Formats: sequence, C-alpha cells, structure tokens
Amino acid sequence: MSELYPADRLGRAQAQVRRHGVDALLLTPGADLRYLTGYDALPLERLTCLAVPAHSDPVLVVPRLEQPAALASPAGTLGIEILAYEEVDDAFALVAGRLGQVAVVGLANRMWAEQVLAFGVAVPGARQVLAGPVLRELRICKSAAEVEALRQAGQAIDRVHQRVPGWLRAGRTEAEVGSDIADAIVAEGHALVKFVIVAAGPNGASPHHRSGERVIAAGDPVVVDIGGTTADGYCSDETRTYVIGEPPADFLDYYAVLQRAQAVACEAVRPGVTAAAVDAAARDVITAAGYGDYFIHRTGHGIGLEEHEEPWIVAGNDEVLRPGMAFSIEPGIYLPGRHGARIEDIVVCTENGVDRLNVVDRDLVVLGA
Amino acid sequence: MSELYPADRLGRAQAQVRRHGVDALLLTPGADLRYLTGYDALPLERLTCLAVPAHSDPVLVVPRLEQPAALASPAGTLGIEILAYEEVDDAFALVAGRLGQVAVVGLANRMWAEQVLAFGVAVPGARQVLAGPVLRELRICKSAAEVEALRQAGQAIDRVHQRVPGWLRAGRTEAEVGSDIADAIVAEGHALVKFVIVAAGPNGASPHHRSGERVIAAGDPVVVDIGGTTADGYCSDETRTYVIGEPPADFLDYYAVLQRAQAVACEAVRPGVTAAAVDAAARDVITAAGYGDYFIHRTGHGIGLEEHEEPWIVAGNDEVLRPGMAFSIEPGIYLPGRHGARIEDIVVCTENGVDRLNVVDRDLVVLGA
Repeated sequence: MSELYPADRLGRAQAQVRRHGVDALLLTPGADLRYLTGYDALPLERLTCLAVPAHSDPVLVVPRLEQPAALASPAGTLGIEILAYEEVDDAFALVAGRLGQVAVVGLANRMWAEQVLAFGVAVPGARQVLAGPVLRELRICKSAAEVEALRQAGQAIDRVHQRVPGWLRAGRTEAEVGSDIADAIVAEGHALVKFVIVAAGPNGASPHHRSGERVIAAGDPVVVDIGGTTADGYCSDETRTYVIGEPPADFLDYYAVLQRAQAVACEAVRPGVTAAAVDAAARDVITAAGYGDYFIHRTGHGIGLEEHEEPWIVAGNDEVLRPGMAFSIEPGIYLPGRHGARIEDIVVCTENGVDRLNVVDRDLVVLGA
Repeated sequence: MSELYPADRLGRAQAQVRRHGVDALLLTPGADLRYLTGYDALPLERLTCLAVPAHSDPVLVVPRLEQPAALASPAGTLGIEILAYEEVDDAFALVAGRLGQVAVVGLANRMWAEQVLAFGVAVPGARQVLAGPVLRELRICKSAAEVEALRQAGQAIDRVHQRVPGWLRAGRTEAEVGSDIADAIVAEGHALVKFVIVAAGPNGASPHHRSGERVIAAGDPVVVDIGGTTADGYCSDETRTYVIGEPPADFLDYYAVLQRAQAVACEAVRPGVTAAAVDAAARDVITAAGYGDYFIHRTGHGIGLEEHEEPWIVAGNDEVLRPGMAFSIEPGIYLPGRHGARIEDIVVCTENGVDRLNVVDRDLVVLGA
C-alpha cells in the first residue's frame, strides 16, 4: 500500500464501526470504498460492495468482470478477500451471507436506492443508517500524504489558470474557451475533468452556470471555476475572475470587496475556529460593504476524494477546525442579470494557521479586448 | 419542448404512477428526471428533486443556485412550478409538504442512500419503492426522435473508430492512445467522454480493463471499447478489436467465431423474440466452437439516456423485444493472461427486424507494427 492508502485504515474503520454501534458497513463504489482500499471501483449496475463487519474480516464482493481491476488496484495488496460472483448470482444475498446476524448496517451515503432496497430485502430486519457519520472522523482530517496529493492537484489547476489568459478573448464562446481549459486540465496533471464553468457577463451571476454558446464580449467579467481529479483520486477546485477590457462601472468596487473578504476568511482559518466563523468572516466584509444580499451561497466546502465533502463552511456549522481539514474558501458576489465575481482557493488548516494550496494571484486579471 | 423531450411525457408518467398504485415519484438528478423534463440536473449534495404526484401537479424543487440552470433547461418551458430553496432550508421537508398524504413513494433508482433515508424521515410511514418499474414502460421503447439521437451518437463514435488506426501502433501506451481517442470523442460530436477502454495484449482478456501504462507491442490484439454522451444526453458505445502486425496463433480462429456470433445475434433481433434468445444466439455460436467458457458476460445492455439500462440481453430475461428497444450486441472471447476480443454495435429493434446504429466494418483491422 502507498502512503496515500495505508494498510491500517480498514482496522481503524472497524474500530469506528464498533464505536458507533453499527454491525457492518456496506460500501458501494465511491469515496469511502476508495479511502479504505485504494480501489477506484466503477459505479455499475452490477453490485460492487466492500463489507466491513465490526467483528470479522472485511470482504470485497465484485462482479467477475471487475475482478482483474480490483486485484490490480491497491485493494489487491491489502490481504482482504476479493470475492467474484457470476452474472446469474444474487450478489446482495452473497454479501448478506457474509454478515451473519446484524441489527444495524451502515450504507455508503451515495449507495443507489435500488441497492438500498435490495439490501433491505437481503438483510431483513436490519436498521439502515449512513456510513458517513461512522467514517467522517477518519476522512475529515487529511493525512500528510493526502494534503500532499491535494497540493499536487492544486498546483496542477494553478497552472491551468495561468494559461487561461491565452484563451479568453472577445469573440470566442464560453464553450470554446471551456474546451481549451478542459484539455489543459488533463494536460497539466489530472486524470479527468470534473467541471469547467466559464461564465461571461450576465452568466457570471449564476454561480453554477455551464459554459455555453454565449460569445464573450468586450467589457465582460468572466468567472472561471474549474476542477479535476488526479490519478490518485484527489480533487482540485479553483476560481478566478477575469475581465475583457474595460470593466462595468461598479465591478471594480465589488471585486475589491470580494478580494478582501476572501483574504480575511483565509486568514481566519486556524485550529479552534468554527466553520461558521470562517463563513462569517467572509460574509461580514461583504455585508458591511452593502453586497450581503448578493452573496447567495455558503463560503466553502471540504475537498478530498470528493469534490464536495465535509466540512461545510456555512452559517450554523459549529464544527471546530482541526489540523488537516481541507476546504474551499470561495465567496462570490452576483448581480442578477448583470455580472458576478468569485474567488476560490483550496486551503488546509494546520497547527500554525492556513496553508494555501492555490497560489495564483487573486488580483483581477484584465485582458485585452 | 423539443421532439426529444415532448411536453406530454409528464402526463403519461402520471398515468403510470396511478397504474402502479404509487402516490408520488421522487426523482433526483439522473436519467428519469431528464427523460421527463429535459433538465440535465447536476448531482449535488444539495437536493434537486422532481416530485410527480399521482393526482396533483408536478413540482421541481431546486437549490437557489441551480434555479437559473433549471429555468434555462427544457424544464423551464414545461409550465411546471420550479421551486427554489435557500441554503438554510430543509429541502426534504419542502418536498414532503407538497405531497400531502402518501402511502407509497417511488424513488429514482439511483437516488443516494442519504436522500433515501432523509425522505424516510420527511415522509414518515410511506413505503419506499423504486421509480424504475413505474417509468420503464415509457423509457424502454425509444421514440423516433430518441432513435435519431442514438443514431447521431452512433455515427459520431463510428467516426472515432475510423480514426483509431491513425493512433494505434507499437511503442505507444494504452493511455496515450486513449487520450487521442478521448479528444476525438468530443471533437466528433459528443458533449462528454463516458469511457475509453484500450486493452492491449493480455489486458484484452479483462473486459473492463482501463487504459494504462502498458506499451503496445507488435503482435498485440487491442480491444477498443469507447463511448460518450451527446449534448442531447444520448449515449454511444462501440467496440472494435484491432491487431498490431501478425496476430497470435489462435487469435484469427476465435475472432472469426466471434464475428459470426455477433452477426447472428444482430440478425436474431426482431419483435417477439426474447432478450434471452438474442443472448443465446451469440452464445450458441461461441459455445459450439469450444469457446463458451471464455464468453464471461451477457451479450448486451439497453442504451439511451443511460449508458446501461433496460433491456438486459442476458440468459433468463424473457423480456419480449418490441420496436424501439435499443441495446448493444457485444459478445466477447477472453483468454485469461493471453488476449481477448470483443465486437459491439448498438442496434434498434424495428417492425422489420434490426436497425444497426454502428456501421464501421467488423472485420479484424490489422495494423502495421
């Protein structure tokens, strides 16, 4: 096993399973399964499931077709049983047969409903709870190797943003620019593109706008929010805002507010501070400047093997930051029908404060029209 | 609404809901939601849910952030209510409040467990069943517009396969070839790449091998199985097998068997024949030639808005084929540790027999070493 997927994780997970009074976790393809085994299993209609009982050995049940991939993954070096089934077998019954008597099973948070209901039949009488709360204490604080993996992803997406000015100009469509960016996300060190938002002019006021046929025009602010996943499975996510030529009248004013808010929130990150306090740090600056109604989302989200995971940097979340927590700081200001701006970095909480994984300059990038 | 997403679908879905004795469908982002509304909603940790009650108007509940995207999608032209909620709202309670008294709710088959359990709390006492069986009668037979969308996807992936000989040669890695193919999948008319399998030499014996660092060598058979999704949301999926220079001794023999099996299975497609019979048509040819133990998966899967959907072309499935059913015919022969081959086309069952959506030649493509 690599440092990224240490062999003792399954044992630590089983300790959590017992501590939470759960009899077994049932983990279908996704971040929990990968976190515990290093296996990036495909989400197929055929069941793949890692069963992690509280008191007996874990078993990875896979369709025969996926057995070579499972064995070739880090899971193949863990010494756990990898049990392959045939097309005509009942995979749910097979998993259930390995659990013995169970009263409470913890399901992967993103297990599909069809699997949830099938396990309800195959493991009758067992109460179904979520695996997320069982594994969150392990996953929410990243190991040194995980922080390094996130740093590599952050540097890769930094390099893409440094190249964006070469593609962004009046007369091109958002989609054309997005296509260049997507190619670069892979070329600069990701295994796959997660998302590419190029939101020009009024589209910038929609935080999750998708790059479309709008032709970028002189005077457009352009929000570029991009991310990918590295071969290790760790995610990047970074937003910068650009402007083509002369910006609209009030844009520079609120961009300066936004930049200050993002910096203040980053500086607020340290052990002992709550997630809500980091959200408030950004929000207070924006509200004080009169733009509070235009900051319509939370300040950030955790990141790791998932693009969005805990901790949520949002009002009301009294989660206390600890070293190793990694998350985005991404305030935005959105003027409906007009334009918008967002600045986003991934940061890690360390003993000494904040460690920024994205370092591309946050000053507004003004491009020639 | 476009022909692809006709406005009467929601009404037809409600008729199915009533017919199945279900009180409401709850559809999170995925194929069912898109099929009924044309909205390609993002699968986010924030709930997006189309509620389709049996006896009252459907409502699409979306996070405020996604409201612009929902309105800009075909869903915005349907005249249904699009209800946006704020970061601090309880979206599950909001949906539940629109359902009134319900005894049975049908959940999207791929709704996440965390949402399944949250709806269990928000709609207490309601029995949870799957939406799939409720909507399958609508989705399993494609409309003329859907067949046309699948044909466009099929022609796009045909064009990619026609270019593969330009990239496939000894000395390159599977991953390098896969990267060229991925670019071409988008360039030839897909919105996104779904998967790229380039499996050389012994890797070809693993049906779901992922393109890796293996350097392609002279004498390698190479299985290339690729697919994407068009902007309309419809999928392509096509496999051809290539060989670099002189093939291994027994390869030509079993490739000829495979090609005959694939052709026979395609010719077996017509209304009134069962899915199992199509599977058997391919399997019988391969078994008679002595390779039965090496054909380790079903013959095919349905395709549409999902890469893999009903009908399953597999032993034991007595589903009777009807006009409009679209699926893959993809027998394979896999010699563990040595090499393998697969030939795959997407076909549609019509009144008159089979309509092939992939037309690239199926003879073995022998490339210069």
